[in-house]
Amino acid sequence: MILLLKKNLSDEQKSFIFGEIKKLGYEPSVQSVDQTEAIFFTEDKEVPFDFANMDGVAKVIISRQEYPLTSSKIKSEKTKIQVGPYQFGPSQILMIAGPCSIESEEQALAIARAVKKAGAHILRGGAFKPRTSPYSFQGLGQEGLRILNRVKKDVQMPVITELMDAREAQETCEVADILQIGTRNMQNFSLLKEVGKINKPVLLKRGLSATVKEWLLSAEYILNQGNPNVILCERGIRSFDSETRNLLDLSAVPLVKQLSHLPVIVDPSHALGRRDLIEPMSLAAIAAGADGLMIEVHDEPHKALSDGAQALSYSSFEAVISKVKKIAGTFDLSYP
Amino acid sequence: MILLLKKNLSDEQKSFIFGEIKKLGYEPSVQSVDQTEAIFFTEDKEVPFDFANMDGVAKVIISRQEYPLTSSKIKSEKTKIQVGPYQFGPSQILMIAGPCSIESEEQALAIARAVKKAGAHILRGGAFKPRTSPYSFQGLGQEGLRILNRVKKDVQMPVITELMDAREAQETCEVADILQIGTRNMQNFSLLKEVGKINKPVLLKRGLSATVKEWLLSAEYILNQGNPNVILCERGIRSFDSETRNLLDLSAVPLVKQLSHLPVIVDPSHALGRRDLIEPMSLAAIAAGADGLMIEVHDEPHKALSDGAQALSYSSFEAVISKVKKIAGTFDLSYP
Amino acid sequence: MILLLKKNLSDEQKSFIFGEIKKLGYEPSVQSVDQTEAIFFTEDKEVPFDFANMDGVAKVIISRQEYPLTSSKIKSEKTKIQVGPYQFGPSQILMIAGPCSIESEEQALAIARAVKKAGAHILRGGAFKPRTSPYSFQGLGQEGLRILNRVKKDVQMPVITELMDAREAQETCEVADILQIGTRNMQNFSLLKEVGKINKPVLLKRGLSATVKEWLLSAEYILNQGNPNVILCERGIRSFDSETRNLLDLSAVPLVKQLSHLPVIVDPSHALGRRDLIEPMSLAAIAAGADGLMIEVHDEPHKALSDGAQALSYSSFEAVISKVKKIAGTFDLSYP
Amino acid sequence: MILLLKKNLSDEQKSFIFGEIKKLGYEPSVQSVDQTEAIFFTEDKEVPFDFANMDGVAKVIISRQEYPLTSSKIKSEKTKIQVGPYQFGPSQILMIAGPCSIESEEQALAIARAVKKAGAHILRGGAFKPRTSPYSFQGLGQEGLRILNRVKKDVQMPVITELMDAREAQETCEVADILQIGTRNMQNFSLLKEVGKINKPVLLKRGLSATVKEWLLSAEYILNQGNPNVILCERGIRSFDSETRNLLDLSAVPLVKQLSHLPVIVDPSHALGRRDLIEPMSLAAIAAGADGLMIEVHDEPHKALSDGAQALSYSSFEAVISKVKKIAGTFDLSYP
Repeated sequence: MILLLKKNLSDEQKSFIFGEIKKLGYEPSVQSVDQTEAIFFTEDKEVPFDFANMDGVAKVIISRQEYPLTSSKIKSEKTKIQVGPYQFGPSQILMIAGPCSIESEEQALAIARAVKKAGAHILRGGAFKPRTSPYSFQGLGQEGLRILNRVKKDVQMPVITELMDAREAQETCEVADILQIGTRNMQNFSLLKEVGKINKPVLLKRGLSATVKEWLLSAEYILNQGNPNVILCERGIRSFDSETRNLLDLSAVPLVKQLSHLPVIVDPSHALGRRDLIEPMSLAAIAAGADGLMIEVHDEPHKALSDGAQALSYSSFEAVISKVKKIAGTFDLSYP
Repeated sequence: MILLLKKNLSDEQKSFIFGEIKKLGYEPSVQSVDQTEAIFFTEDKEVPFDFANMDGVAKVIISRQEYPLTSSKIKSEKTKIQVGPYQFGPSQILMIAGPCSIESEEQALAIARAVKKAGAHILRGGAFKPRTSPYSFQGLGQEGLRILNRVKKDVQMPVITELMDAREAQETCEVADILQIGTRNMQNFSLLKEVGKINKPVLLKRGLSATVKEWLLSAEYILNQGNPNVILCERGIRSFDSETRNLLDLSAVPLVKQLSHLPVIVDPSHALGRRDLIEPMSLAAIAAGADGLMIEVHDEPHKALSDGAQALSYSSFEAVISKVKKIAGTFDLSYP
Repeated sequence: MILLLKKNLSDEQKSFIFGEIKKLGYEPSVQSVDQTEAIFFTEDKEVPFDFANMDGVAKVIISRQEYPLTSSKIKSEKTKIQVGPYQFGPSQILMIAGPCSIESEEQALAIARAVKKAGAHILRGGAFKPRTSPYSFQGLGQEGLRILNRVKKDVQMPVITELMDAREAQETCEVADILQIGTRNMQNFSLLKEVGKINKPVLLKRGLSATVKEWLLSAEYILNQGNPNVILCERGIRSFDSETRNLLDLSAVPLVKQLSHLPVIVDPSHALGRRDLIEPMSLAAIAAGADGLMIEVHDEPHKALSDGAQALSYSSFEAVISKVKKIAGTFDLSYP
Repeated sequence: MILLLKKNLSDEQKSFIFGEIKKLGYEPSVQSVDQTEAIFFTEDKEVPFDFANMDGVAKVIISRQEYPLTSSKIKSEKTKIQVGPYQFGPSQILMIAGPCSIESEEQALAIARAVKKAGAHILRGGAFKPRTSPYSFQGLGQEGLRILNRVKKDVQMPVITELMDAREAQETCEVADILQIGTRNMQNFSLLKEVGKINKPVLLKRGLSATVKEWLLSAEYILNQGNPNVILCERGIRSFDSETRNLLDLSAVPLVKQLSHLPVIVDPSHALGRRDLIEPMSLAAIAAGADGLMIEVHDEPHKALSDGAQALSYSSFEAVISKVKKIAGTFDLSYP
């Protein structure tokens, strides 16, 4: 750790800081530059308080790795995550598709068959839906899970669905092949700890205004509890321009792949909130290095009970897949 | 509801839209302006899907009130919320103060006595702490609650503490006079519904990048479940300048007081993250119309286990209170 | 124009609004919905004041096209802009490359030869540099222009350089094939009007926190003065995460190509501020539909007098070009 | 300067970095901590390139003051700026008021008389107006300046008006007592240098997404050219919530007063863009420590040619002044 001191400290203030370091059992050394003093010491365990809080300390520079389990500096080999017959990880593009919400068995079945036929690998479908307004459709809940289960068996596709409440973890796990943690729950640490104890892949969406570091620290909460199977999902961050619902931060993809060994996919549907930009941004996501995509598809997009403006029709989805396959081919990635 | 149509729609597209409105039992009428057509109909119940999703619809204008229970348009009288001997509401300034986290009984007791003596009304102290990193101090948990309970009885102050998990609601309610929902859980809808069923005041912090409307819709989740006692708390939003930890959005105070009947307070400590700006921004908050403040105070700020850089010492806190009283006096507000 | 009125207006307030519309020579008609009244009238010329300012008006909906010359609704054919032997426009990828600043003739010549050999079409090089600090290197100024001119003739490449001050327009035009308007000057309207009067292609960078609409309105300032040759350049917007210097908003590319007929390119160097992300984001930009790229290249990136952290070495630049060509080929775009 | 090196550098990389430091004539020393090496050297003059660009350097910590003329660390005494009979500076509140744009002599005269009578000290009025759209009213230009001059003489008030183009500096200076640099020109460095050479107070508005440091560096451009009379003006920054036009960042006020000796005022009109929040935020600005306010006032706000939605009527302005005087009195500030 390096502590940069403020200028013109009294001897008493300096002694106090030195004293606190020594109480921790560390041996501080000092270096001066341009009237600024810097104190160095090697921290071999976590310091129980924050030196940045101390009067007289201008800046703390930590050299310890902040998310050791998630970091690529400690585990450089890319993590591969098996979901049914597919594997998230390097050199392979996986496609998750389906409706935002499960609305009925008939609808879910029709969409599942259509997206599978078009080339999707995993079916998405929300049973419990986080909605900004309490008066918006909140999902079919347990009935939604039952429908998802029947569709999954019928169509033979792995499924992903969102978990919003630790008390629903067990019943959700009976159906889901991947548990989704939504953007609003990225820092719901109770829920993160809960899915960290479950032996099931977790898709962790980036929070609406989370930094990449905060996102990786949220992944660390899950890994730290014993579950190494975290898939990261960039889904747009808050910005000032209302042309798109959120701002798709594609540079987070190569950044996260550099900082971490976890796979990362992109959800252009929620990021953009409008279907006319899904295709170009899906292609851009793959070109930027994403390991997969999650795209909303609906049989009657205009009548979707949630987020229909962003859902693709079957034919648009097929067009996206055919171009995604081309771009995957260009970069020697497999599209199973 | 008013639907603005895109230009150059085919007759078929228009018929489809009209047909969907008529299926809902509404009678659309049309008005043309500058080559744009607008369709009007009176929505007397919620429309089960979103017209914005429909091809051909450029814009949807809703005139229905989106948060009827929270809105001042429907209930114009200001809500008063009783907490022990004090009342949050118009013409009165209340002060919540204490440490970020409960660290030990001795510490909590000392700080409680100091802030009460200085003029604080309610004691804050976290038992369960949401921390960005899993390796940071997570709070003393149930032991923290027990300490808070003993201190509360000893010092005779109402207390506020954060609830992070619905499964801890019961034990937290046994101690807390106000349940705090933290910024990261503002859209943890399961938790909002849970506290909506509890007969206990709730302090709802604004999310890190929540719009004012989203914040009021989160309050609506609580009111909608039967709990009318929600205190709103502005605590800074995410911005691009790292000089302060977050950006204190004081204009949200008069805005929320205009849009809603709920009381609103300000937490300058978490917003700014640095103690040197707490005093001016506390005064500004009262001048902007806040009904109270929540300020972190610590006996040894530099050694606080969480967020010490923003905690005030006893003497700085006393200085803030004396100026807050002056400004309250200027505007004929009582400081009990 | 549609004016939505506030609820519960007095007859007098309504009469006033109607009177103002009639004074403009328009004939208002009224429609009521859900206790809200809407006033319609056709605006065939610009209204000399803003109805949104009027008491009683809740919302103004304008259907007039706000940037008629820039909009693809009015001119649907894509604009092609000739620069030396190359053409910015559909189905073609152009590459602008070179140093951030001209530092010496020797250096500029070496870099120009290297980027031309690698496959760049146009040379970039700043003579006048906008720098956040007055103590940073401000560019070589007129000497920089002279060097750029000699290099241009020697290497036979068209050149682009930034214009910061209308008073330097003439001498800059004698050298530049494209005038660059930098991000800090996107709303320097005096300068926009000036380059609108010049018969020379203009590269208009997006402002650091400009919405897409504001950007297109700035382009309109140039077109409106008679210069139709505007190339738009996305170069990152301000955000809250300091991992990258700015946030590259790639979804602006397909968005702008939908809203406007102007070509749009991407500058990943300034957006990201770090060379390790240039390659993936260059590929993503092309996949998203960009008509070209502008990339910083330096012979000794670590010694660049400005923005060296983002400059590519010759070999990294060659690697980017070879992948850009592959992705261009995948989408049947030519790379001349 | 302190350079933190990346881990696991080769000897060759280290030698290179050391060599570059020595070439500058500095003597580096090294300190190791937690496997990280830090290199120290005292920089007594500006380093001609950026060490952050160098391979192997993880972080550069500069201890040199970045804006020496603007900084309160170097000149601790508060700057006082004389404008006619008034002085911007400590312990005094000044009020600038008037229309956004000069629309006619009759109007300007009427508003000037009204605001002077209400207690304003300085008249604002735009002759050259920066407008997002080329089709919006651009100000009366030179005719506006002539009107402003006649009104100034008639009403006997100092005036402030915006300078957008260095070529209009001379004629603007003949009228203006304060030159305003608008938010869109905060980083128009040519213009900053120009007003730095003029012996006239400059009001420097904060850019729409400028950090406080960037704002102070823009002030430094002016001071550095010889003009010490800069008044800073916070006027709202870009944010994601459209309830207000911009986000008024009041914490910038105490922050800037701590970092700099320059006076700082607040423009709530442009920040909020709606008149109903002007009063509470004006009071909050004074409570936060602002040295003055700039408020838009119009005789017929609904008919203002620019920004009328935010203009106060005469009676609302009088109400604000009377409360501003009360709050000034509370804090022992004079309101001349």
